Amino acid sequence: MPKIKILDHIGIAVPDLAAAIKTYSTLLGKSPDHLEEVVEQKAKTAFFAVDDTHLELLESTSPDGPIGKFIDKNGGRGGLHHICIQVEDLEASLAAYKQAGIQLIDEKPRRGAHGKLIAFVHPKSTGGVLLELSQKS
Amino acid sequence: MPKIKILDHIGIAVPDLAAAIKTYSTLLGKSPDHLEEVVEQKAKTAFFAVDDTHLELLESTSPDGPIGKFIDKNGGRGGLHHICIQVEDLEASLAAYKQAGIQLIDEKPRRGAHGKLIAFVHPKSTGGVLLELSQKS
Repeated sequence: MPKIKILDHIGIAVPDLAAAIKTYSTLLGKSPDHLEEVVEQKAKTAFFAVDDTHLELLESTSPDGPIGKFIDKNGGRGGLHHICIQVEDLEASLAAYKQAGIQLIDEKPRRGAHGKLIAFVHPKSTGGVLLELSQKS
Repeated sequence: MPKIKILDHIGIAVPDLAAAIKTYSTLLGKSPDHLEEVVEQKAKTAFFAVDDTHLELLESTSPDGPIGKFIDKNGGRGGLHHICIQVEDLEASLAAYKQAGIQLIDEKPRRGAHGKLIAFVHPKSTGGVLLELSQKS
């Protein structure tokens, strides 16, 4: 099974990133630590560090992206979208999951925000939670 | 604004706690660290530590509890339910939120799992995320 390092982040889908940055700056009493457009995910993101982990706000850059579809299904509202756990060895973790019969969305690592290697696990194998694994590159 | 210590936990609603404990034991390669029934929340819970934070699985003990209602609205499926941030001073944090116009579910701290003081912030003020604040007692 994967050697888990930290909870890397919690992904929060938002319909309007600028408004959500204002909201979370008030809630957390600080500005975002990192802004990035992740072209592969069709999303603009803002990260707020909370101790060792992060809240990642995601606004879709296209209605057919994963965040756009989530918000559309959610009646136009944002909400908790995914959680990401950082593992020591992503390839080995995916191989172990596959062997345990866990359904993967990505069988091979791909690039996410911060240039990290990432892969998603299917919600069918996690009780309805979209789970991302990441590895520092 | 609140002095934030850590991301305390992520709450995951599950229809069947025993099944979910099996699933997450496989995903995380470990057993839960803590089991507790939180009578006030009408839920049985299991906590898995991930570095400094935790995944909290919650099964409803009553259809009219918050987890029962969430799963009912979600077509009988589980999913990401809330996030909890640990603050240094919960009373002061709630006062600061109130002053900033943030809508609270609990204006006064109450008891949650692990005997901690907790209070919930309304999703209307967080872009659709159910946010819990907690303080170690």
